[in-house]
Amino acid sequence: MARRALLVDLYELTMAQSYLDEGIDQRPATFSLFARTLPDGWRYFVAAGLEDALRYVDELSFAEDDLAYLEGTRLFTPAFLERLRRFRFTCAVRALPEGTLFFPQEPIAEVEGPVLEAQIVETVLLNVFHLHTLLASKAARSVDVAQGRRLVDFGLRRTHGGDAGLAAARSSWIAGFDATSDVLAGKLYGIPIAGTMAHSYVQAFADELEAFRAFARSYPDDCTLLVDTYDTVEGARLAVSVARELAERGHRLRGVRLDSGDLVELGRRVRAILDDAGFADVMIFASGNLDEGEIARLLAAGAPIGGFGIGSRMGTSADAPYLDMAYKLVAFDGRPVLKLSAGKATWPGAKQVFRVSEGGRFTGDVVGLAAEEPPAGAAPLLRAAMESGSRVGGGSLAEARERCAGQRTDLPAGRYEVCFSEALSALRENAEAEIRRPRRRR
Amino acid sequence: MARRALLVDLYELTMAQSYLDEGIDQRPATFSLFARTLPDGWRYFVAAGLEDALRYVDELSFAEDDLAYLEGTRLFTPAFLERLRRFRFTCAVRALPEGTLFFPQEPIAEVEGPVLEAQIVETVLLNVFHLHTLLASKAARSVDVAQGRRLVDFGLRRTHGGDAGLAAARSSWIAGFDATSDVLAGKLYGIPIAGTMAHSYVQAFADELEAFRAFARSYPDDCTLLVDTYDTVEGARLAVSVARELAERGHRLRGVRLDSGDLVELGRRVRAILDDAGFADVMIFASGNLDEGEIARLLAAGAPIGGFGIGSRMGTSADAPYLDMAYKLVAFDGRPVLKLSAGKATWPGAKQVFRVSEGGRFTGDVVGLAAEEPPAGAAPLLRAAMESGSRVGGGSLAEARERCAGQRTDLPAGRYEVCFSEALSALRENAEAEIRRPRRRR
Repeated sequence: MARRALLVDLYELTMAQSYLDEGIDQRPATFSLFARTLPDGWRYFVAAGLEDALRYVDELSFAEDDLAYLEGTRLFTPAFLERLRRFRFTCAVRALPEGTLFFPQEPIAEVEGPVLEAQIVETVLLNVFHLHTLLASKAARSVDVAQGRRLVDFGLRRTHGGDAGLAAARSSWIAGFDATSDVLAGKLYGIPIAGTMAHSYVQAFADELEAFRAFARSYPDDCTLLVDTYDTVEGARLAVSVARELAERGHRLRGVRLDSGDLVELGRRVRAILDDAGFADVMIFASGNLDEGEIARLLAAGAPIGGFGIGSRMGTSADAPYLDMAYKLVAFDGRPVLKLSAGKATWPGAKQVFRVSEGGRFTGDVVGLAAEEPPAGAAPLLRAAMESGSRVGGGSLAEARERCAGQRTDLPAGRYEVCFSEALSALRENAEAEIRRPRRRR
Repeated sequence: MARRALLVDLYELTMAQSYLDEGIDQRPATFSLFARTLPDGWRYFVAAGLEDALRYVDELSFAEDDLAYLEGTRLFTPAFLERLRRFRFTCAVRALPEGTLFFPQEPIAEVEGPVLEAQIVETVLLNVFHLHTLLASKAARSVDVAQGRRLVDFGLRRTHGGDAGLAAARSSWIAGFDATSDVLAGKLYGIPIAGTMAHSYVQAFADELEAFRAFARSYPDDCTLLVDTYDTVEGARLAVSVARELAERGHRLRGVRLDSGDLVELGRRVRAILDDAGFADVMIFASGNLDEGEIARLLAAGAPIGGFGIGSRMGTSADAPYLDMAYKLVAFDGRPVLKLSAGKATWPGAKQVFRVSEGGRFTGDVVGLAAEEPPAGAAPLLRAAMESGSRVGGGSLAEARERCAGQRTDLPAGRYEVCFSEALSALRENAEAEIRRPRRRR
């Protein structure tokens, strides 16, 4: 993102120009980033994206060719371009640690500082938190139904670009996936990488058996054979031949992959072929348009599948490809603000999310003001991530993964209660009354 | 993408290792990239992504730290890592020029060359062609219903990452959009950029009128006022005040933006307020969860809206967030190949798409073999884009936009006929019979 300072909606810059013109560009503002609603059937969000968001604001600067382009648009004054040339992000950021479960109206992050800076970062902060949280939350739905089966992110080929491929790998790992096919994610994040073979590989050999044998020669201990190129049952029989040959040489066939057809029926037939030949330890791995609904259906039907490759439907969050997430001004120059737009009204003031627990289980959340005392037995969830533009605290990817697993365990079944504190409700009432009060106009 | 050589599914590399082990890595392969089906209600695809795809293969190389990571996985031999160190893409690429309309089973691109190279690029070629084509095709659906109204890409904040934001801007421009909010897309591609103001801007001032006046001071000739922060009708009245003040100073209010509520009803009331005050030339610009369905509904209901900001639903292709697009081996070492997987069978052989026209209108397509003669009156659509790894031909973004507009005009209404040539059908029958012929096995 370092060279992507212009990856921004034009209005962030024109508003910043106006703030500067009006002499209010350094006034303190607080923006709150939150989602309005959960997609149908989703129970919770998994917070993700903080690490990339902090790197973005930390590295944000405008290069000379960026400024030259902006100058050419004739939308900006020399004074503003000079302000951008000196731009450095000096705001405070409070955020939910990655892997935290959260709910609608609860801020995943708040940014507080000079309005010019806090405004300009809106587009990318929204984009980053939205993408990572969307994919982590979507992936968690597969983890919720997989009954401990192996889950591998296969999304990269149809995610919306390479950023999204990396985000899918990283976010699904936070959510509890076991591996990714994305080699770059392995390199960057240390996530285990996994893969099998493509149909093209099988087709490149004179016949299926030759293909299987060739792959087993190269990977005698890490070989999952794709058996559906021509005929799945026949492919499984050939896989047994290779499993025998491997066993004779002291190796073990790891698995077979099914990528098409009726996975319940084919899974049973292939399982029987493997078991009858003494290869009960060879895993059946399934792929092909899978998601949490399909995993649940297959397992409920008793499909003997040990692992799932989850691709496009997770990687694009196909049932809910975007969240109603927003970055809204909640305080300006010391005064709480809100908007009243139909269906999109906001809660004013810098906030905190308090999570109430009892006996190791969460019992509900209270969204309150950042300044108020936590309710009894409640823990504040938003933590300082950046102060005066410098990173403070922050956690590792491993901690995020562990946090998510722990919180999924502690979450009660059924609908989760989120309420607003009295102080926040009172603030909203006052702020709304203030707006509705007749004022000089025209 | 230059530093993203490892942005690849692991199996591309393990298959490549095996091709090298078997001594077949230099054998010629042809891969075909196509979509299997159109999403519900979609009439055509718009080809896009070629430019980014060519840049990727052109720049593809493995850095020492990439190779060090791969070495650490213990999945690859020193000989293979040395092969990657010397990697250069030397294949031929034939592709549909960007902006071409196309249909299921028609290749958008074919890659021909050493199997190791053509295999390794699978993941990113699919990712790039898929994303750009998805977004261009989705955007064209808005253009199809907008009756010439102004269309602006507002997707960036919720596209799946920055790559997708740029792809949305570029692809929607090819499809016929008028501008984008994405400043980087303006810089990189020369697309007109546009924007209004956010609710936060209005909230940052003591009242709405102050906010409007401030923005009009900074942008007297390029000012679109967001009027729904508190009360849309009242906001429109304040906009009229500012329009008058601007007019007195020799400027013109450009527009007002509605972002919430009933856009038909509010559009009419706001239009009347503007018209009654003598500002019939001030455009009403609408945004907020819009897509082609909503544009069509609003225009059918007579909403007096002159322009639309189309965001998340276009930028994530929300009704069809991924296409059933694949990159399949169709010939290897001189022999046509296919797969028979249930529901995913493929057509063998290097192909060409022939478009038949009559009186300036398209009458149908024939998918045939690359080597066969075009049917009478038909034009071949796939063109050489790269030979021996060097770019040949290729077109500008402006040409792509023009091509798309022209082809949308020439496309007949209703279902479009696509058939397969006799030569291709015969090849498939033979190849299938060859596979089904009993062979030595086990």
